[in-house]
Amino acid sequence: MKNKFYQYIQNLQDTITSKLEAVDGKTTFKEDIWERPEGGGGKTRVIENGNVFEKGGVNISAVHGKLPETMQTYFGVKDANFFACGLSLVLHPKNPMVPTVHANWRYFEMYDQNGKLVDSWFGGGQDLTPYYLFEEDAVHFHKTCKTACDKHSPNFYSDFKKKCDTYFWNSHRNEARGIGGLFFDYCKSSETMTMENWYNFVTEVGNSFLEAYVPIVEKRKDIPHTEAQRTWQEIRRGRYVEFNLVHDKGTLFGLKTNGRIESILMSLPPQVQWVYDHHPEKDSDEEKLINVLRQPKNWV
Amino acid sequence: MKNKFYQYIQNLQDTITSKLEAVDGKTTFKEDIWERPEGGGGKTRVIENGNVFEKGGVNISAVHGKLPETMQTYFGVKDANFFACGLSLVLHPKNPMVPTVHANWRYFEMYDQNGKLVDSWFGGGQDLTPYYLFEEDAVHFHKTCKTACDKHSPNFYSDFKKKCDTYFWNSHRNEARGIGGLFFDYCKSSETMTMENWYNFVTEVGNSFLEAYVPIVEKRKDIPHTEAQRTWQEIRRGRYVEFNLVHDKGTLFGLKTNGRIESILMSLPPQVQWVYDHHPEKDSDEEKLINVLRQPKNWV
Repeated sequence: MKNKFYQYIQNLQDTITSKLEAVDGKTTFKEDIWERPEGGGGKTRVIENGNVFEKGGVNISAVHGKLPETMQTYFGVKDANFFACGLSLVLHPKNPMVPTVHANWRYFEMYDQNGKLVDSWFGGGQDLTPYYLFEEDAVHFHKTCKTACDKHSPNFYSDFKKKCDTYFWNSHRNEARGIGGLFFDYCKSSETMTMENWYNFVTEVGNSFLEAYVPIVEKRKDIPHTEAQRTWQEIRRGRYVEFNLVHDKGTLFGLKTNGRIESILMSLPPQVQWVYDHHPEKDSDEEKLINVLRQPKNWV
Repeated sequence: MKNKFYQYIQNLQDTITSKLEAVDGKTTFKEDIWERPEGGGGKTRVIENGNVFEKGGVNISAVHGKLPETMQTYFGVKDANFFACGLSLVLHPKNPMVPTVHANWRYFEMYDQNGKLVDSWFGGGQDLTPYYLFEEDAVHFHKTCKTACDKHSPNFYSDFKKKCDTYFWNSHRNEARGIGGLFFDYCKSSETMTMENWYNFVTEVGNSFLEAYVPIVEKRKDIPHTEAQRTWQEIRRGRYVEFNLVHDKGTLFGLKTNGRIESILMSLPPQVQWVYDHHPEKDSDEEKLINVLRQPKNWV
């Protein structure tokens, strides 16, 4: 399974970066291949100063070895070995009318001291962070997520949509990071789902990503915008930074376990503002967004 | 003691904000008075878009009540009451030649269920974060800190300078946030220092702040700078955000215990950049700074 899934995310990285380069039309991804001293490594692909994408990364990694101590505590195990691989992407578009997107698909295996596989699971999801809310875009993104989910279980969309709203909650701001999507973790073999079934589900979601996001980009990337709308985008990007550095388990985990910092922090936006006690004007488009973030909606 | 110290920081807030307004010459601090539903409140003073100060805050607060659960765990006590007051300031100058500065002086009291005082301590410090290193400025700042310390104990400067370097360590970047200064905490009554002695020490440091910082601002605020130097400043401000959101105990504590978010996050810089895998040129001024941050120096 680990080879099959790693092969899958290698191909998916190629598919996604080629398509995004075509959409951008100006800049290409720069690739950095890195090694992890304790075992494994990754392929980081970053795009900067494009026509459409101001900054973004589509990264894969496959790491293995002794389970780091912080992870032992986290999983409540001792002296285990592990293998983990995944694809992580974040795209920060230049135009404030185009939403930021995040996606991640990952697979984890844990072994005892004799190298016997004792546990394995999939995790991942994809979610959208708009600066201006086009309801039809939110509906399109969520519908694409639901279509992928429905092929595998009638409950998946509603379960994983809820988990996404819960996970990407910027609690100190009392608002969601964005308008959600899917989030799932610890997808393990069960009576109803074999690991093979989970593989089919996770890759189905992975394959749906471009269809979920690219049509939105194409529709919004050339909309003219004002300086004030750009400022709003940069202020909202500040909330993205706050979520990723204060609440996101994946980011904090990477920072505290000696992960490759530049690959982890590629998720941070290129230009960001913090303005003291900023509030959008009453009944403005900016306030309309905030109202939706305060109270996550059902889009489908 | 609590009334005496709160009176002190109220006066100090006035002294500091008047002086900084005079230095800025364009903008004044905007004041927000807020109340904490569980007891107490504060006076936040923020300056934005000044001639000299792009963003900054000089805030005081005095809060009291039942010790929040997260603090009970932190201090290893149960069902206690507390009083805490302090002044916190962060200033982000516009000109990259002027360093960012942070300072904080605080006093804490803890009571048992019958309202009996069971513990009390002072804490605080002041530290400098330059974007371009003028060695004479670092020496001036540290000398001023040392002079204040030396009046109270021959060990304070070297002890609290080391604590500062340790505390403001951006571990995931393997570099210091800035060039340090003083950091002290849990300054409690002992054989050599009464609480009155600590009060005298902490207020001595508080009184030294303007002398430590303002001459540096005056010297550097009108130095011409390039667009590239501004970009460097914004990238380094990103490291300031990373420290405050990932490592700073005070910030995280405030965010997770329902503190007044806007007063806490006034510490975040106004305009910030994240550039993937950015490295300064060899032997440049930017690299010179990094080298000092990697290996904290003795300035006095």
